[in-house]
Amino acid sequence: MINRLISKIQETKAPIVVGLDPMLKYIPETVKKKAYEEYGETLEGAAEAVWQFNREIIDHTYDLIPAVKPQIAMYEQFGIEGLKVFKRTVDYCREKGLVVIGDIKRGDIGSTSEAYAIGHLGKVQVGSRTYAGFGEDFVTVNPYLGSDGVNPFLDVCRQEKKGIFLLVKTSNPSSGEFQDRLIDGKPLYEIVGEKVAEWGDSLMGESYSYVGAVVGATYPEMGKTLRKVMPKAYILVPGYGAQGGKGKDLVHFFNEDGLGAIVNSSRGIIAAYQQEQYAKFGEEHFGEASRAAVEDMRADIAGALENR
Amino acid sequence: MINRLISKIQETKAPIVVGLDPMLKYIPETVKKKAYEEYGETLEGAAEAVWQFNREIIDHTYDLIPAVKPQIAMYEQFGIEGLKVFKRTVDYCREKGLVVIGDIKRGDIGSTSEAYAIGHLGKVQVGSRTYAGFGEDFVTVNPYLGSDGVNPFLDVCRQEKKGIFLLVKTSNPSSGEFQDRLIDGKPLYEIVGEKVAEWGDSLMGESYSYVGAVVGATYPEMGKTLRKVMPKAYILVPGYGAQGGKGKDLVHFFNEDGLGAIVNSSRGIIAAYQQEQYAKFGEEHFGEASRAAVEDMRADIAGALENR
Repeated sequence: MINRLISKIQETKAPIVVGLDPMLKYIPETVKKKAYEEYGETLEGAAEAVWQFNREIIDHTYDLIPAVKPQIAMYEQFGIEGLKVFKRTVDYCREKGLVVIGDIKRGDIGSTSEAYAIGHLGKVQVGSRTYAGFGEDFVTVNPYLGSDGVNPFLDVCRQEKKGIFLLVKTSNPSSGEFQDRLIDGKPLYEIVGEKVAEWGDSLMGESYSYVGAVVGATYPEMGKTLRKVMPKAYILVPGYGAQGGKGKDLVHFFNEDGLGAIVNSSRGIIAAYQQEQYAKFGEEHFGEASRAAVEDMRADIAGALENR
Repeated sequence: MINRLISKIQETKAPIVVGLDPMLKYIPETVKKKAYEEYGETLEGAAEAVWQFNREIIDHTYDLIPAVKPQIAMYEQFGIEGLKVFKRTVDYCREKGLVVIGDIKRGDIGSTSEAYAIGHLGKVQVGSRTYAGFGEDFVTVNPYLGSDGVNPFLDVCRQEKKGIFLLVKTSNPSSGEFQDRLIDGKPLYEIVGEKVAEWGDSLMGESYSYVGAVVGATYPEMGKTLRKVMPKAYILVPGYGAQGGKGKDLVHFFNEDGLGAIVNSSRGIIAAYQQEQYAKFGEEHFGEASRAAVEDMRADIAGALENR
């Protein structure tokens, strides 16, 4: 799957992932109104609005991008009905040929991590049969519990040829509270990065590992260091756009081969129509606004990479 | 809710939480057979087996214990059908008067953490109405992302009078890989423990905080230190029984008032009938075996506390 992700990035010339994090406030009133008319102001109604919103954005962007990253929390907040739409979104994106990165940030120990890995990347055994619970291609994983928490994911990835992105340095302002603390003169994120490189060595694709890392666009200097610490890890970079990261901040996340990083934008793409720059599209053409935002993001990153 | 948890512990004289982590291999063949006959060897069939198993155990133990801790991963592995049974289990336990600790180990940043907090502890707004997605009383939270990840949970806890348990020192063998690393001479788990105390100060119940901590029974010496670092935090202690922790290892997790800790056992209770000690009950009386295991665990902990 890492090989497929890379070939899709090369094909689209877009090291971009669209974050499908549909908060209700991003969804046009007309879409919500229609869904509530059909299902009432209920969890089903909210889920239907999310689904119609997602589908429109996917339909307007899938040919430009290699991958999407639905954030499961935004679905989980609506309980079972929300999670049904998470699954429906995963399935629809895969039908459209997109690589799906489930942003689930799970992480536990032993058989519990195994259950998450099976549920999201693998297949669960029921009697003589097997079933995929959610069926993403990649997921994000929290490393705080150490190897016992990560190994079960690696085992499932090995079987299924799927991958993970481990949280190394997150994009939020307070990520430093624990992640930046110095251990023998090295910040914790670097120590986690070294483990990512080690875990990744055992699970290589053609040129990059199935084991990637999350490093926030908001910390370009740390990205530079971590790029060297984990040369074979694909870096998933959140924090572009709405969180403040810009194309020029991203160049050090990439290797000399122009590969090695994939940049996420969520609000900046899916709620583009709410920004001044794309207001001309109007609420009813929110999908086209998202498409324009993807094209601008691709140009911004390509420009920054050319000028580095 | 922390006050209610404490009064339930005092009432039952059992600082015990039963971990409802129903792996299929723990479920008696007869229960699975019946579920598969009705629903086939499908995700629905597996979920039905889990539900029948859970209900039997709850019915046989609810009057002895203050709380249960369903591990969401064990349900999530069966996709939507599994999560429906997670919700059903939460609802059933609350009807039975039990405090429900959702072992979800979520943790993200800003609006994403807020979405998890709303989905599991709070209520989500849909138009003019609000709904509880999963409706647990407490959840476990991963602190690796720092205050940005934790504060949204605190906000929802404050509104709803609910609580969280933050992962501080987990029970697994490799938890030390990151958690034990020394920072200015102090292990990371202690630094996280200090933050737990700080977060907890802002959200106090009568005698303990709504902000608790997870510290594994397998690390009694660290439990002793952390008890002092976080005097007002309730400690949720996994790792008793199957993972190797015993009653005498647990005494330092408790305060002098006999409170301050609640000990989880999962496999040791729910799969008691598979152990030699309880084999006499037979597979068909697995609920009674679980009840006997709870009684023995209560006596083991009470004995250790008396002799400390």
